[in-house]
Amino acid sequence: MTRRLLVIGIGAGAPGHLTLQAIEAINRAEVFFVFDKGEASSELVEAREAILAAHRRAPWRLAWTQSPKRRAEARVHLDGRDAAAPGPAAEYRAGVAHWHAERAARLAARIEAELPEDGVGAMLVWGDPALYDSTLRILAGVRAVLALDVEVIPGISAVQALTSAHGLVLNEVGEKVTFTTGRRVLKDFSHEGTLVVMLDDGTGLEALIAREAEEAAAGAPPLAIWWGAYLGMKDELLMSGPLAEVGPEILRLRAQARAARGWIMDVWLVRTCSIKSRAIFSY
Amino acid sequence: MTRRLLVIGIGAGAPGHLTLQAIEAINRAEVFFVFDKGEASSELVEAREAILAAHRRAPWRLAWTQSPKRRAEARVHLDGRDAAAPGPAAEYRAGVAHWHAERAARLAARIEAELPEDGVGAMLVWGDPALYDSTLRILAGVRAVLALDVEVIPGISAVQALTSAHGLVLNEVGEKVTFTTGRRVLKDFSHEGTLVVMLDDGTGLEALIAREAEEAAAGAPPLAIWWGAYLGMKDELLMSGPLAEVGPEILRLRAQARAARGWIMDVWLVRTCSIKSRAIFSY
Repeated sequence: MTRRLLVIGIGAGAPGHLTLQAIEAINRAEVFFVFDKGEASSELVEAREAILAAHRRAPWRLAWTQSPKRRAEARVHLDGRDAAAPGPAAEYRAGVAHWHAERAARLAARIEAELPEDGVGAMLVWGDPALYDSTLRILAGVRAVLALDVEVIPGISAVQALTSAHGLVLNEVGEKVTFTTGRRVLKDFSHEGTLVVMLDDGTGLEALIAREAEEAAAGAPPLAIWWGAYLGMKDELLMSGPLAEVGPEILRLRAQARAARGWIMDVWLVRTCSIKSRAIFSY
Repeated sequence: MTRRLLVIGIGAGAPGHLTLQAIEAINRAEVFFVFDKGEASSELVEAREAILAAHRRAPWRLAWTQSPKRRAEARVHLDGRDAAAPGPAAEYRAGVAHWHAERAARLAARIEAELPEDGVGAMLVWGDPALYDSTLRILAGVRAVLALDVEVIPGISAVQALTSAHGLVLNEVGEKVTFTTGRRVLKDFSHEGTLVVMLDDGTGLEALIAREAEEAAAGAPPLAIWWGAYLGMKDELLMSGPLAEVGPEILRLRAQARAARGWIMDVWLVRTCSIKSRAIFSY
């Protein structure tokens, strides 16, 4: 008799990203737990409700949890500094840990109130729960105060939506691929392999464009970028090409789209690419 | 009037990994192109046929292409050497490129013969077509000799099957994640972030166990490993724990399973982890 929580990856925006496993899990749960993050995410909540309406055979219940406000963090880019040392990176991690702990306490209370002791609840997670998503960390916090079995159902991530939309292979033959965040772009970029950047508010891309301009002056090979926003959705945006040429265009388009819609989710990847034509960058 | 080829990610082994998009695409194609890689993969071909039998509403046709033999490559681990320099890495890449070109020529002939000029064909790809899979590279070769539209449908990758089975988040907070191959393990390993290793025949893991033993003697923090084989299948194998303790057990289990079944597909990840108990390693 232990409560069970299904963490269901629902894909990156396209209704067709949903897996058969996810649909089965949606029909196993009785309550769906949702964090209320304010207006910016209402469109994303609607998308989740549309998935339930389309695939849930029995009625369902949403249980809302008020999300605590996140402390504003300094916009700091890690440029070769040790992320483990005290300083902005450690402060950032402490801020995130504090925020997760607060969310865990609120969610634990909600699960205890809403779910019978043998009940099955679920959380629908955008993309894949394993990739730069906080749900599993918050649930580790919940499990510290409440007995709970957790089951994870993987989902198509925004990175996969990006590569499939561009017809790209993530890795070059025999090369590595690094996933990082906007804050770490300059620290993790190298001319070897592919760099995938998530959770960037545009400042990571801006910093890399500036870095490339410096390096190009010193004779470094050029970079290419593949970018996508609102991936899998009807009004998906895609751009790709030489970073020096296309990067500034992406920043402009990103700012416009964000202002018009109120929110943006995007992801991009770069790699060294000596072919300068834009024609090669799409299937 | 251009032939169209759908590259459909079918997930890492579980029938439930299939997405609604993939099912739609399976029903759009009339011919399914398959490379005959010999006996080792017959179980994987059967799994594909089971997916077609379960989800295809109309009859279908398989079109086989004989896969050329791949040149044997020296088992070389890149240990801090420049992968772009002439030597084993460049030789490896040249061997792969040659093999892809041969497969592309054979596949192009097959597509031209089997698919009418306005026809839709498909290839079912294990995992995600964007991650260490050769299908899209081979199709780039096909497009050099035959007009062909290519459409990619992402699938749940073995890495996602691994993280969901272990209830893991791939990244630590604010840290990077590097994907690499068994051949590059020693080159790409660092104590920062998470290292995901694909296409390892066991020698990459063996090399990292040896490296860790040396580093531990010099006071480096311990590593933890999460491993899985036949992920998503009925007889999925999972192990996790401190690398020094669990790593050799994994190598033994891997060799046994491979001998018993005739083939193995596995993936693993490591990161620095100071908690030494095995208890923390699963949900």
